[in-house]
Amino acid sequence: MSSALCDQFGIDFPLFAFSHCRDVVAAVTNAGGFGVLGATAYSPSQLDRELAWIDDAVGGKPYGVDLIVPAKFEGKGEKLSGSDLAARIPQSYRDLVDDLLRAHDIEPEPERRIGGASLSGNTGRELLDVALTHPVKLIANALGVPPDYMIEAGKERGIPVAALVGAKEHAVKQVAAGVDLIVAQGTEAGGHCGEVSTLVVVPEVLEAIDGAVPVLAAGGIVTGRQMAGMVAMGAAGAWTGSVWLTTEEAETAPHTVAKMLAASSRDTVRSAGRTGKPSRQLKSEWTDAWLPSAEGHQPLPLPLQSMLCEPVIRRVDVLAAQGHQGAQALATYFVGQGVGLMNKVKPAREVVREFIEDYLAAADRLSNSLPG
Amino acid sequence: MSSALCDQFGIDFPLFAFSHCRDVVAAVTNAGGFGVLGATAYSPSQLDRELAWIDDAVGGKPYGVDLIVPAKFEGKGEKLSGSDLAARIPQSYRDLVDDLLRAHDIEPEPERRIGGASLSGNTGRELLDVALTHPVKLIANALGVPPDYMIEAGKERGIPVAALVGAKEHAVKQVAAGVDLIVAQGTEAGGHCGEVSTLVVVPEVLEAIDGAVPVLAAGGIVTGRQMAGMVAMGAAGAWTGSVWLTTEEAETAPHTVAKMLAASSRDTVRSAGRTGKPSRQLKSEWTDAWLPSAEGHQPLPLPLQSMLCEPVIRRVDVLAAQGHQGAQALATYFVGQGVGLMNKVKPAREVVREFIEDYLAAADRLSNSLPG
Repeated sequence: MSSALCDQFGIDFPLFAFSHCRDVVAAVTNAGGFGVLGATAYSPSQLDRELAWIDDAVGGKPYGVDLIVPAKFEGKGEKLSGSDLAARIPQSYRDLVDDLLRAHDIEPEPERRIGGASLSGNTGRELLDVALTHPVKLIANALGVPPDYMIEAGKERGIPVAALVGAKEHAVKQVAAGVDLIVAQGTEAGGHCGEVSTLVVVPEVLEAIDGAVPVLAAGGIVTGRQMAGMVAMGAAGAWTGSVWLTTEEAETAPHTVAKMLAASSRDTVRSAGRTGKPSRQLKSEWTDAWLPSAEGHQPLPLPLQSMLCEPVIRRVDVLAAQGHQGAQALATYFVGQGVGLMNKVKPAREVVREFIEDYLAAADRLSNSLPG
Repeated sequence: MSSALCDQFGIDFPLFAFSHCRDVVAAVTNAGGFGVLGATAYSPSQLDRELAWIDDAVGGKPYGVDLIVPAKFEGKGEKLSGSDLAARIPQSYRDLVDDLLRAHDIEPEPERRIGGASLSGNTGRELLDVALTHPVKLIANALGVPPDYMIEAGKERGIPVAALVGAKEHAVKQVAAGVDLIVAQGTEAGGHCGEVSTLVVVPEVLEAIDGAVPVLAAGGIVTGRQMAGMVAMGAAGAWTGSVWLTTEEAETAPHTVAKMLAASSRDTVRSAGRTGKPSRQLKSEWTDAWLPSAEGHQPLPLPLQSMLCEPVIRRVDVLAAQGHQGAQALATYFVGQGVGLMNKVKPAREVVREFIEDYLAAADRLSNSLPG
């Protein structure tokens, strides 16, 4: 494709692929797209190893990293340790999780594990420092306005900083804060997402920021035809995540892949029950337990909800993989509504190739609709 | 535009405009699109008058009618009168509405009015018979599989029958039932809608029915660039509704138009609190009262919820127009997330013209993204 964005990033096709898996990142970059490693779950030394592996694999081709440094979180500015934060998780919530496990024939662990505060914003700076020792060509922040140090680091080194937004008001704030690339993400997206659909939020954001920076469309995009539709609307390209979860390179657990291949677009739910902020994931008895109903429970704020839930969800996942029925009913995974269109495991390179072919066919279709 | 659908319907541009207002229907048809009159709220004799007016206004150009004949509703097959149905509205629900009114400084009427059972499916046949005495070129059913008599009437007379669907499974059923045109409608649509976004449900439906009948895209579409995006994806055109509510011809109340012009895409909510089935509308203290929360109340099934609510909502609307503050806080209106892009009152003809221009610009954008 020919576009200012392709020139800026040195890529052939403006398909941005978010993944927690280095193999996917490298495969997409090597196929002419742009891989972005989700870095939040890594420790600084792990991240360093992952990025070194990618550097070797892509031979100078461009890739980026995605951090989640929320603008608002419990304990912000209080310099709390992980155990200080853990102390803020009420006993009633711990009991609730235990009851939910027992109801699914899973005995709670005698010593409760509380997860790391990676969504507290406290670890972002260290991870960024590690990333900057590698030739990253994009720094993305997936939740809220990036902290000043991130924007400054990008400006100093000439590395564009991207931010994900779910509403036009947020896009305007992000541009004012100095962000170089907006990812306008619809409610159909996997993971954290807003309420507005991609088809509406993309033109709203484009109108609101009026060309100040390029806009990538995100949310529900798992095919080239959808990407082409978004480029017709004025997006500079697509930001994707879910579609890579069922690639050969992904480290998604086999039972999760099976669930995703079988899922229709109606098998996801937007719920705050995993991290404390609304995020889209596979519907399960875990997500049911956090629905806003008479029996439901208001999730805790970032990062407390994920500190409470992540270790349990990971344990559930291990049991589910072993065939435990209660665990399989509870198991969930971040994924968007596009899961309804994900029906086959493929190599990531093949997904990129199909995106390009499908994009070209879509452009033909639109062109053929014109008279003469 | 050149397309099989344009040839089939004798139109220049495959923009279908649903409206309750005959002036909008005629204006869109006369501007080269296809107007569709929402007929459900009319009595048979009223509908006859409206269609006669349209016949005069369009001089043989094509238009259609849209009925809402639900496949499932309370009392189906029981041959109940309106008052039999009304007796099934529990006293606690009547009290709840009265309490909500009093909390907004509105005294409930001494004699409660209960609305007509237009969503019971009982009046659809009569309305259809009236429509068939006019040269309608499309019969649409907005909720569920059309009844056999509707599909048979269409086949006998060579009039295509369209159905709105919010999920691919429903599209497959509709095609099997003999429907000629599928409107795949996303969750961002105004009025009754499913859970899946337009960007996902359109390709899902296209894939599921594999060319058996043409598919129009619906939900959130208020601009030509969005329509172009959908055509690039394989849709045969667009089905729209919300965008006509703020045209000069629409009979939308001035305070409602003002609310819509000011609204962002985040000011709507999908709620069953108006008809008993989930529908998208402006957020208000009315819709808040029916949220699924500890204080919320499970809405009644079709048609009971609308029989209970419609007369009250209409009265609230009259009071709101007079400047009553409590009524303004309660007032709501069916509209989609596209409301965030509706910022100016325009003639309907002008909206069609802008759609065409914007569509052409979008086609250029996509074409220019290709190499060479």
